[in-house]
Amino acid sequence: MFDFRRTHTCGELRKNDAEQSVTLSGWVHRSRDLGGITFISLRDRYGMTQIIFDPNQDQKLQELASSLKNEWVVSVKGTVKLRAEGMSNKNMPTGDIEILPESLQVLSKAQVPPFVINDDKTEVNEELRLTYRYLDIRKGIILENLKIRHKAMLAIRNILDTNDFLEVQTPILSKSTPEGARDYLVPSRIHPGSFYALPQSPQLYKQLLMIGGLDRYYQIAPCFRDEDLRAERQPEFTQVDIEMSFGTPDEIKSITENILKGIFKACLDLDISAPFEELSYEECMEIYGTDKPDLRFGMPLVRIDDLAKQSDFSVFKSQLEAGGAIKGLCVKGGAELSRKKIDEYTQIVSSFGLKGLAWMKKDDAVYTSSIVKFFSDSLLQQLTNRFEVESGDLLLFAASSESCVNQSLDHLRRHIARERNLITSGTYKFLWVTNFPLFEWDEEENRLNSVHHPFTSPRHEDIELLDQDPLKAKSYSYDIVLNGYEIGGGSQRIHDQKLQDKIFEKLKLSENDLKEKMGFFLEALKYGTPPHLGIALGLDRIAMILCDTENIKDVIAFPKTLNASDLMMKSPSAVTDGQLKELFLKTDTQEISLI
Amino acid sequence: MFDFRRTHTCGELRKNDAEQSVTLSGWVHRSRDLGGITFISLRDRYGMTQIIFDPNQDQKLQELASSLKNEWVVSVKGTVKLRAEGMSNKNMPTGDIEILPESLQVLSKAQVPPFVINDDKTEVNEELRLTYRYLDIRKGIILENLKIRHKAMLAIRNILDTNDFLEVQTPILSKSTPEGARDYLVPSRIHPGSFYALPQSPQLYKQLLMIGGLDRYYQIAPCFRDEDLRAERQPEFTQVDIEMSFGTPDEIKSITENILKGIFKACLDLDISAPFEELSYEECMEIYGTDKPDLRFGMPLVRIDDLAKQSDFSVFKSQLEAGGAIKGLCVKGGAELSRKKIDEYTQIVSSFGLKGLAWMKKDDAVYTSSIVKFFSDSLLQQLTNRFEVESGDLLLFAASSESCVNQSLDHLRRHIARERNLITSGTYKFLWVTNFPLFEWDEEENRLNSVHHPFTSPRHEDIELLDQDPLKAKSYSYDIVLNGYEIGGGSQRIHDQKLQDKIFEKLKLSENDLKEKMGFFLEALKYGTPPHLGIALGLDRIAMILCDTENIKDVIAFPKTLNASDLMMKSPSAVTDGQLKELFLKTDTQEISLI
Repeated sequence: MFDFRRTHTCGELRKNDAEQSVTLSGWVHRSRDLGGITFISLRDRYGMTQIIFDPNQDQKLQELASSLKNEWVVSVKGTVKLRAEGMSNKNMPTGDIEILPESLQVLSKAQVPPFVINDDKTEVNEELRLTYRYLDIRKGIILENLKIRHKAMLAIRNILDTNDFLEVQTPILSKSTPEGARDYLVPSRIHPGSFYALPQSPQLYKQLLMIGGLDRYYQIAPCFRDEDLRAERQPEFTQVDIEMSFGTPDEIKSITENILKGIFKACLDLDISAPFEELSYEECMEIYGTDKPDLRFGMPLVRIDDLAKQSDFSVFKSQLEAGGAIKGLCVKGGAELSRKKIDEYTQIVSSFGLKGLAWMKKDDAVYTSSIVKFFSDSLLQQLTNRFEVESGDLLLFAASSESCVNQSLDHLRRHIARERNLITSGTYKFLWVTNFPLFEWDEEENRLNSVHHPFTSPRHEDIELLDQDPLKAKSYSYDIVLNGYEIGGGSQRIHDQKLQDKIFEKLKLSENDLKEKMGFFLEALKYGTPPHLGIALGLDRIAMILCDTENIKDVIAFPKTLNASDLMMKSPSAVTDGQLKELFLKTDTQEISLI
Repeated sequence: MFDFRRTHTCGELRKNDAEQSVTLSGWVHRSRDLGGITFISLRDRYGMTQIIFDPNQDQKLQELASSLKNEWVVSVKGTVKLRAEGMSNKNMPTGDIEILPESLQVLSKAQVPPFVINDDKTEVNEELRLTYRYLDIRKGIILENLKIRHKAMLAIRNILDTNDFLEVQTPILSKSTPEGARDYLVPSRIHPGSFYALPQSPQLYKQLLMIGGLDRYYQIAPCFRDEDLRAERQPEFTQVDIEMSFGTPDEIKSITENILKGIFKACLDLDISAPFEELSYEECMEIYGTDKPDLRFGMPLVRIDDLAKQSDFSVFKSQLEAGGAIKGLCVKGGAELSRKKIDEYTQIVSSFGLKGLAWMKKDDAVYTSSIVKFFSDSLLQQLTNRFEVESGDLLLFAASSESCVNQSLDHLRRHIARERNLITSGTYKFLWVTNFPLFEWDEEENRLNSVHHPFTSPRHEDIELLDQDPLKAKSYSYDIVLNGYEIGGGSQRIHDQKLQDKIFEKLKLSENDLKEKMGFFLEALKYGTPPHLGIALGLDRIAMILCDTENIKDVIAFPKTLNASDLMMKSPSAVTDGQLKELFLKTDTQEISLI
């Protein structure tokens, strides 16, 4: 058998390797003939090395080399030579040397690929990239992203191991549970008419492990949701799933901070400072109008209900009387913005139901705008103080229902930050958001829904509210936000079976569903459940931020499209009648005919 | 909120912690009242600590303590005290100290569990253990096994990371491929009548990653097979999946040896010596009659075709004439065995179709048995030399077809080793078995089958045999065997599209299946495929050996039964009509009625 072993990778030879005899293997990245001499750039995962085929040294070898095509796989044996004075390539780590070859072997030929591999600049159609995913990986960017993802996973595991967390694999062939998104089902052959479900998260398993005394668990877990996909979603995604007993939210926050510090150090060589900032959900909504604010820039929302009430501006006053809210934000240097630009902003927020934006510009000591006349000098002074307005700034105000104001100004704040380049790339601003409401109202189903999930513990002081005013009850919960993205969340869990039962009751899970689908869990809570809590981090989202991409497909080796297809494998695909028969299933042609 | 934080675990306090104020949390493992004093053994994952409630110190506290039941979860604050002279418990790591408590809080009460937690001796029915898996974990043995499994996984990852392997997660929602076992299918909602399949292994993905230039890949991968289960199988199992480019089998063997050394060091603090022994498949079958021999004991099979031919024993001679084989093994000290015992052995091998066992006993210089008379003194001397027979030994012979002889004597060899206690527990004997045949004959399907899988490369010198005599062709393959179990296997892969096509053709994969299911892979091979090779290790089996158990369920947190059920969750289970309708499926009641 031919020995495919290389002595070095294409990325590692340096000046002080000169005169060594080496064997390199890799892909022909680029080949040039200059004055009869053939220059081959040989590429592998680790880098690129130049090979010089000089006919004066070996004509036959040079002829063979000049016949190589891009993406052929070859093995070259030769001697490392220092490049001549002034010929070094500073852009290449191996740019000080080149290889003078003695022999060359073609290991694999290659057809012309459907898109060019050695050119990063030409945009390639995404469908083509996904169909030939292996070539897209070889092109380089996806490969770099997969390296970063690998480093992140190893950092996570080493930190959790150091903290006594055990990695436990939980089942993929699981069970359909009543809460949450739509399950992927797996028909059982042995139990006709019965199905497994792929887990949306290992939530119940990890809580059962706590009941089992495992004390500290983690898993980098594949999770599944059969939902209509958005650009940043995939049918299977990865969750860093963590649970511990006998701890407090502060402990799990500190462990999470250490994990994130470890990840950023390992992947980007950045030192993240901790503890992270923290805001309660209420504070966060007040200041940013969202529970996942981007803290890389300022422009907080400021409430002016009290000032508006004292003004003569009827639009504001009538909103307040109708129970609405008035908030504003201050665009630094925004006084220069045209009326047209402000109209554009108004257009943007109109999609959230906001009817208009009021505004004021400050020029030296003077406010201008059509609404300034409704505000006394004293009120204007108070606005100046509250927003810290300087000359040249623009104030924008929204008056409507609380949620409409928040949504509009959150969106506008982010839009203006992007537009005015307020975000320094390479900065990472973490934030804990805590004490979320336990429930939210589901208009469609006309019942309460869990804001996190039904296993989240209400705050002890709010347990009475469960019956009196459940929407007011807060939970022991914490989300972690990075640069405006929710990258994880968790909570103290309920460890009391009666309280868990009550929460299920509040969520109006039917008796049947409860017994059938959650009975085993309510039973498990009866045998000595330790207080426990946990967190789940979205690995794909973290990887996207580390890799500086908005496309989740860029951080997954073999992603699926928006309609959940694998274009490379052509999956999902038809199966044989025999396979269906074994599963006691028939295609429902009547249903299909209805689409 | 009550602070559930402990200052220490129940396993860590020692002499030099005396007089420290501590808080411990855990389960009441055992409680005893002795002369009015209550002794509580408090247990968590890390160990056990004794708490002493003395009514002379605090009567109320002692009364509360004496009301605690087993498995209640409590938190105790108190002072570490040295036990009195002579009262230390040497069997407990914390046996030099006890806790004098100031306060006690009940965190969770517990119902009487369905089986006793604090008693390892009473055998518990497996169905009950699986139904209450969380309590079975808490009982201790499974928990210890999960710790070992965690350590093994971390060791694997750290070694592979050090060797530049990237951990890449490949899809679980994959595609049904024509080779191998039965797939688990997942119906698609978005593509009516189409299905994903859960992967039986990430084989194709890892080869595509090599084509993608990833160079070195690994994954601790969940794999799925919908087969009728045997005791040591599970529908989902875990494979340590490794692939590399530009390497040789020797390199991958050395990396695998390092992984196994790392695992045994981390889990059992044992230094395994490498390189491991190696036998070709042919040698291995010759000496042990199996491709997964247990090398913890000797008793090799020895062929005596040549001697038998010279004897007058017609049974042997007629077997040889019919193309059969004759092998034997030497049971040290076996001359003491009764005729009845030998009859028992004969009974055992009869299940493989062997009609009888011939035998000879050696007592001093004299052989006895009914067949000695057919052998000349010179032949007997040659037997003595070949089997290294000593006085008191027993020779057993099998004469039949090659495969019947091998199966019978392999089985007998292992049976006798167990019976005669030839296996020292705690010893680990590794073996590489290499150069397997490429194909085997599938009697049922009347066609060739791959011994490993269809991507395994034939040895270069055997490529001509593919057409002439395919069953004679050998492959670049290597299995790793530990203590008689195959714990992994791998091969050099085919990197030439035409050769791969030819193998598919030999396997009689239909044109349609090929194009539909493997077309994308044959296409991928055309664009510059590096020579690559890999291995997959069975993590569950390795964990079983590390944990010294024959039951695969003992090393999996939430295992399934032999009929692929989760007894705890009651899964698989019924789903709603609505769920099926969304998937365009109907239960085939006609098929079900046929069972």
